[in-house]
Amino acid sequence: MSSANEIDRAGMMQALAQARKSYDEGGIPIGCSLMANGTVLGCGHNQRIQKSSATLHAEISALENAGRLRAQRYREVTLYTTLSPCLMCTGAILLYKIPRVVIGENITFLGGEELLKSHQIEVVVIDDPECKDLMARFIREKPEEWNEDIGEE
Amino acid sequence: MSSANEIDRAGMMQALAQARKSYDEGGIPIGCSLMANGTVLGCGHNQRIQKSSATLHAEISALENAGRLRAQRYREVTLYTTLSPCLMCTGAILLYKIPRVVIGENITFLGGEELLKSHQIEVVVIDDPECKDLMARFIREKPEEWNEDIGEE
Ligand SMILES: [Ca+2]
Ligand SMILES: [Ca+2]
Ligand SMILES: [Zn+2]
Ligand SMILES: [Zn+2]
Repeated sequence: MSSANEIDRAGMMQALAQARKSYDEGGIPIGCSLMANGTVLGCGHNQRIQKSSATLHAEISALENAGRLRAQRYREVTLYTTLSPCLMCTGAILLYKIPRVVIGENITFLGGEELLKSHQIEVVVIDDPECKDLMARFIREKPEEWNEDIGEE
Repeated sequence: MSSANEIDRAGMMQALAQARKSYDEGGIPIGCSLMANGTVLGCGHNQRIQKSSATLHAEISALENAGRLRAQRYREVTLYTTLSPCLMCTGAILLYKIPRVVIGENITFLGGEELLKSHQIEVVVIDDPECKDLMARFIREKPEEWNEDIGEE
């Protein structure tokens, strides 16, 4: 994260803390935080295992935890996620017209980044080793849960 | 719905019952049901007002209520929704590779139908008067809640 600015470092640290929390709970280690002008609006992690949830990906959890916001508020948000967002989470970003997305890594999984860019959303990929290590460890331990989360056999 | 078959009629009736339930609770009247080979796997309605939820659209609620399913199960699903799915819900359909979507109407709101079709998903629009009437009534009564749900001012 050496090239990211202070606010981006803080945002990704929050997302990574959520990912670690999920891992420690036995869950899928993906975390997300939403920041607007230096304020955290919400954060969350994947809840597939913890809540038997098919829809609470990290990004959806963070949006849910941020609660109901006016449309204009989302236009000020940067979304930090430890892993490239899947198509559902990409669609949520498009629904709320979040203008900027910072991604921990996209080596483990490459989601809808092109779709985001085609909607003029700024996409920054940090390629963070900790984000990658955490996912690699999880997939080694629980490959079936990971495949289920991305809709694959 | 005169041209829909018996199973499609049953699926849309379930979705519409969910939409009416939401309206009766003071919520946004959009409902969804998931059916596979004649079995209802889950259904739900928009929960923005009832649960102060930014992410529980009808389709997300139905997927959540269906619980964790194997990837293969989703390949057998038809998703019935009373209104054209927004980009978040469209993305959820793409994530789980649901092959068929039956939509009550797309006059009130036109969502990601082209994106669905570009992924070879079968999209059927019924143009049901009851689905349209329910939304028209709600938007007349609570225009701000509706705009918030679709990320608009
Ligand atoms: Ca996730
Ligand atoms: Ca909805
Ligand atoms: Zn996702
Ligand atoms: Zn939606």
